[in-house]
Amino acid sequence: MRNLTLLTDFYELTMMQAYHHAQETTGHSQWAVFDLFYRENPCGNGYAIAAGLAQMIDYVQNLHFADADIEYLRSTGSFGEPFLAYLRDFKFTGDIDAVPEGTVVFPGEPLVRVTAPLPEGQVIETALLNIINHQSLIATKAARVCWAAGDDRVLEFGLRRAQGPDAGIYGARAAMIGGCHGTSNVLAGQLFDVPVRGTHAHSWIMSFDDEAEAFRAYAALYPDACILLVDTYDTLRSGMPNAIKIFEEMRTNGIPLTLYGIRLDSGDLAYLSKQARQMLDDAGFPDAIISASSDLDEYLITELKSQGARISLWGVGTNLITSKEYPAFGGVYKMSALSENGGPWLPKIKLSENPNKVTNPGVKKVYRLYDAATGKMKADLITLADEQLDPRTDLTIFDPLATWKRMTLRANEYTLRELLDPIFKNGQCVYQSPSVMAIRDYTQAELATLWDEHRRLTNPHIMPVDLSQGLYDLKQAMIAANRM
Amino acid sequence: MRNLTLLTDFYELTMMQAYHHAQETTGHSQWAVFDLFYRENPCGNGYAIAAGLAQMIDYVQNLHFADADIEYLRSTGSFGEPFLAYLRDFKFTGDIDAVPEGTVVFPGEPLVRVTAPLPEGQVIETALLNIINHQSLIATKAARVCWAAGDDRVLEFGLRRAQGPDAGIYGARAAMIGGCHGTSNVLAGQLFDVPVRGTHAHSWIMSFDDEAEAFRAYAALYPDACILLVDTYDTLRSGMPNAIKIFEEMRTNGIPLTLYGIRLDSGDLAYLSKQARQMLDDAGFPDAIISASSDLDEYLITELKSQGARISLWGVGTNLITSKEYPAFGGVYKMSALSENGGPWLPKIKLSENPNKVTNPGVKKVYRLYDAATGKMKADLITLADEQLDPRTDLTIFDPLATWKRMTLRANEYTLRELLDPIFKNGQCVYQSPSVMAIRDYTQAELATLWDEHRRLTNPHIMPVDLSQGLYDLKQAMIAANRM
Repeated sequence: MRNLTLLTDFYELTMMQAYHHAQETTGHSQWAVFDLFYRENPCGNGYAIAAGLAQMIDYVQNLHFADADIEYLRSTGSFGEPFLAYLRDFKFTGDIDAVPEGTVVFPGEPLVRVTAPLPEGQVIETALLNIINHQSLIATKAARVCWAAGDDRVLEFGLRRAQGPDAGIYGARAAMIGGCHGTSNVLAGQLFDVPVRGTHAHSWIMSFDDEAEAFRAYAALYPDACILLVDTYDTLRSGMPNAIKIFEEMRTNGIPLTLYGIRLDSGDLAYLSKQARQMLDDAGFPDAIISASSDLDEYLITELKSQGARISLWGVGTNLITSKEYPAFGGVYKMSALSENGGPWLPKIKLSENPNKVTNPGVKKVYRLYDAATGKMKADLITLADEQLDPRTDLTIFDPLATWKRMTLRANEYTLRELLDPIFKNGQCVYQSPSVMAIRDYTQAELATLWDEHRRLTNPHIMPVDLSQGLYDLKQAMIAANRM
Repeated sequence: MRNLTLLTDFYELTMMQAYHHAQETTGHSQWAVFDLFYRENPCGNGYAIAAGLAQMIDYVQNLHFADADIEYLRSTGSFGEPFLAYLRDFKFTGDIDAVPEGTVVFPGEPLVRVTAPLPEGQVIETALLNIINHQSLIATKAARVCWAAGDDRVLEFGLRRAQGPDAGIYGARAAMIGGCHGTSNVLAGQLFDVPVRGTHAHSWIMSFDDEAEAFRAYAALYPDACILLVDTYDTLRSGMPNAIKIFEEMRTNGIPLTLYGIRLDSGDLAYLSKQARQMLDDAGFPDAIISASSDLDEYLITELKSQGARISLWGVGTNLITSKEYPAFGGVYKMSALSENGGPWLPKIKLSENPNKVTNPGVKKVYRLYDAATGKMKADLITLADEQLDPRTDLTIFDPLATWKRMTLRANEYTLRELLDPIFKNGQCVYQSPSVMAIRDYTQAELATLWDEHRRLTNPHIMPVDLSQGLYDLKQAMIAANRM
């Protein structure tokens, strides 16, 4: 496993040394709670899909400063020997709680909560954000693309345009979590046991003198997965007639036509797919697949479907693997409480001129509230960690910015669930990550708890994420105290 | 070094098996030439900066199918034993030529040219594109940001928002190549020997009861690099007065104020920086640095400068590390020639309805033409590999799409240079990558060969990339033959 311990911002280490120095000189020890949360759903979506936890666990478990790392830090001239000696035996000893991968999440609620000695909680900030931001972004984008595709299958094809190897590898992983049915990325297939898919490129055709000959050679070798790319020279005048000729030869020769069809990679996909469908149907190949892969995204798929395009398999590359219209998730990591020498947790707040950017203080947890009759999600409620909700009693919740927006859930008409699961206890991992395909199934179940109005691509309904009265009161009191 | 051999699209392997199968059954061997090029400059820029070659070399040198890789491929059910046996001893045996990293490049010209046995040239497509696309994108974006910053320094701060660890690591590398002066990414600093920078975050302030106390503790430990973040509570009423108090204490205590100042991370950066400058100047700290880091990009930096913002150090994160407005470079990899059984190179072409997307056939090279008097670039000219230009004779070049656009360079009034350097010969690397900081210097020299009109951010002059008469005639003949 790669040592990613130095995958951090320099200031995490300078702060870490400063915390360590203060502790050594004063004898005081500090523990802190940090919340990882985000402020805005990607792409104007109504929700996000949390992802990346398995890689976050790998990172934390593998956290250690190798000799070469310490030597490098010494060479910067910014670190003293006492701190470098401390790093030599450094490991993570705190607790981490997090929402499981594949969970539907909303802005403002903690996806990860770190409770640890201050230097330990600080140094992991950057890598945690990097990992969770990336995979949650791509999982969310994939959920959008798959929503647009409806019952059709979506394949992730973006490796060549991903922002480096990891963006391809973990992007493919996240795309599967978000709902894709397969990926072209072989390494992702190997690492995460997910289906890999693909047939041939234009270069295959160009390596033959003749397009039909190229198709014939391919079909001979791969009769069971024979998707022919028909747009190298001229889709309707050359590619389609040649593909149909090959399918006819297969039929004549008694080769079972199971998974077969064509791929369009350029041109007017609505027009070409309808023409191709007609040609295939006329030739007696109504079950031939028409797949497409040309700068697709959720909007273009929606538009093509509204035009009656006859495509049932969508290969989505660049726009999915980079989340092109919205390529950064924007998660942040903020201190919410501090304890000195094992004393009580003191809540901490960061102020801002922008009310949305004032952090929620204290040690918190998240309840998800469901309508008991339908099983659909009603709202999330962030509470202080020691608050207990009881679904046998009425519960009134309110919007923390527009407090007149209130909703009362009647006793026994709602159910609830806590979102944060224990991941690390005293530095030991206590969580077993499910397989990617199991996470994918869980994501589908999560999405089924949303009404379509929350899932639509544009101007979705916004799920309330409210604060308990106790948390709200604490926050207001701290804002008032700081503004005096 | 990580084994990235399976970092490829599945269809590269199915095609590879098909090529291998054809070779085994016919006894024919095929070699191919592939060009890696791109079609559009990122962000509407007038040029791009090529980057990623060092990682491409690592990838090719390390290319091998480990036992576990072969076992995985066998498990997919798509590959037969003869092919899997061939993979066991597989290595790259061909030639690669490429433009050096840091070179200014333009759409349509080969950045990398691969000459290899067909299966070898095919299977490396995806990883080459992934690596070159990513780093060239970020290097180009960084060049834009640094252009906007003028004589000010720019630091890359984006790791937490990068699309996975590699996007942070190699993105930081590319950002340095493009002109950044340092990065917050410690692992990039270690791997590439580039300057790492950073001081503290809001959490440092929040770990103290009092902002001034937090500043004082930080200044005591880091008097030589004391940039204080002033916006945790209230920039002008709390952060600035407290920072000035600490600088005054340092002065009183005889601590040399060398590299010191403040950082703004939110709010109205133009207004706050002017106010902060005034407060620092009034207190006798005219050399205190004002740095800023809040969703910056080349446009916002330009605007802030036009408003007279008093910022001289720019920390650029999300928008740089993701190239947010244009997050995919769009490089492609196309076959341009084929040779059977050691015979002559037969040119290959891929047609398209879009004239810009018709590929350039044949084995080619790229000449860069300079004005002899100024040393400024005049144009690039793609020629067939066996064509020789002589700057002692007049040279007339023309736009391949609008052939009436012509330019004649007079004998001895221009100089020329070939852009493609040998990187691999017969599978052996014959190229030594310079250090990242040396590449950065080379990039600056490259950029100096452009007029400002080519470098401006919006609607830049477009550098001509023309075809030699020989290449133009070949291309037209092949188009005509295919359209008959």
